[in-house]
Amino acid sequence: MKSYHLTPGTGLAGLTIREHKDPEPGPGQVLVRMRASALSYRELLVLTGDYPLPIRPDVIPGCAGAGEVVAVGAGVDRVAPGDRVAASVFPHWIDGPFAWEYAAQLGSSLDGTLTELGLFGEQGLVPIPDHLSYEEAATLPLTALTAWNALTGGRPLRAGETVLTLGTGDVSLFAVRFAKLSGARVLATTSSADRARRLRELGADEVIDYAETPAWHEAVRAHTGGRGVDHVVHVAGSLDQSVRATAIEGEVAFVGNWLGRETATPLSEATLFASAARIRPIAVGSRAQFAAMNAAVAAHDVHPSIDRVFPFAEAHAAFRYRETAGPFGSVIIAHP
Amino acid sequence: MKSYHLTPGTGLAGLTIREHKDPEPGPGQVLVRMRASALSYRELLVLTGDYPLPIRPDVIPGCAGAGEVVAVGAGVDRVAPGDRVAASVFPHWIDGPFAWEYAAQLGSSLDGTLTELGLFGEQGLVPIPDHLSYEEAATLPLTALTAWNALTGGRPLRAGETVLTLGTGDVSLFAVRFAKLSGARVLATTSSADRARRLRELGADEVIDYAETPAWHEAVRAHTGGRGVDHVVHVAGSLDQSVRATAIEGEVAFVGNWLGRETATPLSEATLFASAARIRPIAVGSRAQFAAMNAAVAAHDVHPSIDRVFPFAEAHAAFRYRETAGPFGSVIIAHP
Amino acid sequence: MKSYHLTPGTGLAGLTIREHKDPEPGPGQVLVRMRASALSYRELLVLTGDYPLPIRPDVIPGCAGAGEVVAVGAGVDRVAPGDRVAASVFPHWIDGPFAWEYAAQLGSSLDGTLTELGLFGEQGLVPIPDHLSYEEAATLPLTALTAWNALTGGRPLRAGETVLTLGTGDVSLFAVRFAKLSGARVLATTSSADRARRLRELGADEVIDYAETPAWHEAVRAHTGGRGVDHVVHVAGSLDQSVRATAIEGEVAFVGNWLGRETATPLSEATLFASAARIRPIAVGSRAQFAAMNAAVAAHDVHPSIDRVFPFAEAHAAFRYRETAGPFGSVIIAHP
Amino acid sequence: MKSYHLTPGTGLAGLTIREHKDPEPGPGQVLVRMRASALSYRELLVLTGDYPLPIRPDVIPGCAGAGEVVAVGAGVDRVAPGDRVAASVFPHWIDGPFAWEYAAQLGSSLDGTLTELGLFGEQGLVPIPDHLSYEEAATLPLTALTAWNALTGGRPLRAGETVLTLGTGDVSLFAVRFAKLSGARVLATTSSADRARRLRELGADEVIDYAETPAWHEAVRAHTGGRGVDHVVHVAGSLDQSVRATAIEGEVAFVGNWLGRETATPLSEATLFASAARIRPIAVGSRAQFAAMNAAVAAHDVHPSIDRVFPFAEAHAAFRYRETAGPFGSVIIAHP
Repeated sequence: MKSYHLTPGTGLAGLTIREHKDPEPGPGQVLVRMRASALSYRELLVLTGDYPLPIRPDVIPGCAGAGEVVAVGAGVDRVAPGDRVAASVFPHWIDGPFAWEYAAQLGSSLDGTLTELGLFGEQGLVPIPDHLSYEEAATLPLTALTAWNALTGGRPLRAGETVLTLGTGDVSLFAVRFAKLSGARVLATTSSADRARRLRELGADEVIDYAETPAWHEAVRAHTGGRGVDHVVHVAGSLDQSVRATAIEGEVAFVGNWLGRETATPLSEATLFASAARIRPIAVGSRAQFAAMNAAVAAHDVHPSIDRVFPFAEAHAAFRYRETAGPFGSVIIAHP
Repeated sequence: MKSYHLTPGTGLAGLTIREHKDPEPGPGQVLVRMRASALSYRELLVLTGDYPLPIRPDVIPGCAGAGEVVAVGAGVDRVAPGDRVAASVFPHWIDGPFAWEYAAQLGSSLDGTLTELGLFGEQGLVPIPDHLSYEEAATLPLTALTAWNALTGGRPLRAGETVLTLGTGDVSLFAVRFAKLSGARVLATTSSADRARRLRELGADEVIDYAETPAWHEAVRAHTGGRGVDHVVHVAGSLDQSVRATAIEGEVAFVGNWLGRETATPLSEATLFASAARIRPIAVGSRAQFAAMNAAVAAHDVHPSIDRVFPFAEAHAAFRYRETAGPFGSVIIAHP
Repeated sequence: MKSYHLTPGTGLAGLTIREHKDPEPGPGQVLVRMRASALSYRELLVLTGDYPLPIRPDVIPGCAGAGEVVAVGAGVDRVAPGDRVAASVFPHWIDGPFAWEYAAQLGSSLDGTLTELGLFGEQGLVPIPDHLSYEEAATLPLTALTAWNALTGGRPLRAGETVLTLGTGDVSLFAVRFAKLSGARVLATTSSADRARRLRELGADEVIDYAETPAWHEAVRAHTGGRGVDHVVHVAGSLDQSVRATAIEGEVAFVGNWLGRETATPLSEATLFASAARIRPIAVGSRAQFAAMNAAVAAHDVHPSIDRVFPFAEAHAAFRYRETAGPFGSVIIAHP
Repeated sequence: MKSYHLTPGTGLAGLTIREHKDPEPGPGQVLVRMRASALSYRELLVLTGDYPLPIRPDVIPGCAGAGEVVAVGAGVDRVAPGDRVAASVFPHWIDGPFAWEYAAQLGSSLDGTLTELGLFGEQGLVPIPDHLSYEEAATLPLTALTAWNALTGGRPLRAGETVLTLGTGDVSLFAVRFAKLSGARVLATTSSADRARRLRELGADEVIDYAETPAWHEAVRAHTGGRGVDHVVHVAGSLDQSVRATAIEGEVAFVGNWLGRETATPLSEATLFASAARIRPIAVGSRAQFAAMNAAVAAHDVHPSIDRVFPFAEAHAAFRYRETAGPFGSVIIAHP
């Protein structure tokens, strides 16, 4: 079987593919024939060496993938051969808030999904919804789960509340869908008419063009009777502006700042106090959140947006495309 | 102006109508021209003397109504003449869990809504959604709010979860709608094919005939892969059976047992422990919950089910109808 | 009866005292013979015009006070003549999260406590613990309640957790006590050996000299095995530094930035993401929180720290002392 | 090395000891030299066959124990040789609410602690506080953790609240201590003056003799000004009576009814509705709760009550003593 491997910080040149003997599952382990992986911004940072967590040399990259169980080790009872599963990005994060003891992560400190056969602990696997293809399911572990955690992991999202999403990255596209199927109203931002149209197709009630309206937080206020939104899924840009767009006791889910680069306008303490918004940094989600999300995805027949699918042999091209094409939806690698 | 008055425990004979001078609002008070009241099971218990809380002699009955503000007293700034409002059943319950200090209640210890002009404290008033008629809005303060509290006041309801409703009382009909617009799956029970059809029209995903299937909790288990439901809105019948239908860590919202009569099968402690369900007794909801519910009702263009509307002069007929007709939807009294 | 009045933004020169006819309580109102008021930093900002909320011209200043009920208006049943009570700073904030509709505030938009007789709505009054003098009880509504909300209003504080307090302002002194009586470990900061000693007397387990150790967040990390604290009561200074001192999923209660002046080092988004701390801005607390705090104060026989008591006639001197003396504990005005 | 083994349902006669080859830890596994086990009521039920969950034939009994890590398998990084650890009763329950997928349990479906050397998954181990002996630490995984979950796992326990404990079983003794170190007031029940004295020594503020006062819920009401308590740790007896003792929106943590025998007075629905108490069934707790409890135990220098320690060779005598002696505190088996 073949696996991709990575020399951290060397970019695409450091991404190689090698042949291995098929691994065998030990006690508590599960062998999965990977069928699809999703390439996210996170994977690009791993390649370039900008990812803030340690990368094991020669690691198999890829933190988000789905496949079929082909063999199980002694004592495994969560899954059985033939099961369709996804792997948890943080396999030790089962439920509750994140903690350092859950920090081991696929595709960085642990081998990831860009392999024909992957060996995972049984506790880190989650069944995927029946109605999804493997390509679709590969989007769930990272970007979908981040959106789900952003909306449900802190202040509960209630029907009738208003959610703000920013741009058309994968997390934001999922956030639009998850907010809508939870009964919320969605305000979204983007900078092109075409993307605005596609956001509306996904359910966005209002789309604000942030290029035309740089003070988009004021437009958000205007669309909410001056009140501000109840939830922001803040994926990038000025945190200060997101806080200004938030209602009293609303929540800004802060989806990272992976590069450690500060935005031009730092968060003003006066803004924060005046808004009375809560800020909650998040990163992906727990296995329990993954399962809860899957129940919602299944109940609402959600099909993730996929921009393009590349064959397993063309991972380099897929990475280049992910980096440069500005996709609308996920970039997927289909395994053989 | 005319008001109905009540001699508690004397039934319909004790319900009389009298002419009064128009009241004037004092500091913090609001005069409301009532436009509609909703008659619930609770009002029948007040009439018969079976209501468990004290009834002030000669009280104006009716705990759920809507109308238009006609005058405000000194210092009032929550509402203004012309505003369309509903009155909170527990005017002092603003937010948070219920407490004894909030126990004063319209239509029992405080004058209620069956009057042409009602005098209310400004803190006990809530704006009603624009898209609703007064008749529709009169259903909100009691039965709708109870259903909303049942689903959102304890364990948060998330999209993809499953809710069980029982029968076709007003609370259950609202629970079906609120669960659906929150993205949940709904199992409902009833005993007639016609009502099953109407429950499905409101959104119920599965309807179980409890007459055909007395062990309906087993049918609920079967419809949830053996797991049980995440939420039960338990309005009547065997609490034991509802607990048996509930998933581990699921929640049974226990909507009262107003008559103090025990069901044939008391709740078994073994059932409770084996189910690991949580039980949360509730009664109506807070003003903050009322406002949150109204936001959802407005966002989803919910129109409450109304069975029949009676004119103000025919309150006696309305009460008789409410008691005997087995209505599907609310029985409303339209004020002049 | 005499009351102080205020011309906002004119400083102490704008603070005058005038004789009035005794007021009479209307429906729902309560007349309270004020016995003590507490002067806080907030009162200084009101005087100087730096307070960010609108001040009614000629308002009676003082948001925190305690006294004895002398008369009640029609319909009042929460209190009776002779009751010892404190007034809620936000009289309409009964329970739950803060909301704009609760923004009316004593001593700014509403008449406050620096009066011999105060007229309050009954819903805004709270009984005070028996073991406290009026002088002591006057400290409860603002600074004590802020500390209580900081520790209990968001992430629940559990025994065995660690709390960080900053400096020796009134809020911080209460935070030390409330954290200790909740079973937490307390790290405190100050810049003098004498204050460090007094913080230890109040229960602080470790005191860090922030003058000697400007990077005090590193000292906090060191005292928590690198983990950071579970709760910070952030009253002033660099929010960035407080966030750096906080454990993953810990909470920084952000007690305002009333002047709208930014700290030298704004909160870095990279800091925030790396710490994974939650930030929750707060302002005072609800009536329900007030009552819960009083139960704890009574159960643990807490006596608030009082620095100095001035007679009612010497309010100007009291304000000057509060502004310049750097008190350890509250500055109180005792009413006649 | 020697291990005890069990033939379920045959009582003490079915408890045998056998010699084994020392096991070796596989990937993710940890070999622990067990130093102490605690015998609880649960172990007696396992022996008699009354335990409601399946028991694997020939299983090593004992769900609560502590020991020293002697070897670790591949990939283990949570613990290292020399570490003092306890084993989680439910090794797969890491955090969050209980779920069926966490049901595997030491001493029933999985081998337990009554062995000289135990093999455990690394995720199911928790470091124990330094100040505790192994005998003391053996009490933590089951009865202490149950008490901790009862008080902190649902409605948060706040300083100044009131807790009711029932009797002097191990869970109740821990509940008294944990409530006190959280700043709560404790009402306890027992039926002997000597035990009342010992409960007071542990911190109970009031002790009610339930033999003298069979309607002890009325005494509880009297001791709380009619209000009822905020938390009940209901370990046995009439759930109806515990609910009657509870304040509105208070919580009854229902610690099982393992035998499936109903109490004489079933829970009345009228009682439940009138009390407006919430009921939350619980069983032990998660690993995250275990760690949080240990932090509190360490911070407050808690030393568990131990009634008697038996040597490993005398397990039969220990079980007989546990069954018949009515111990005050835990019965411990000290391993060689």
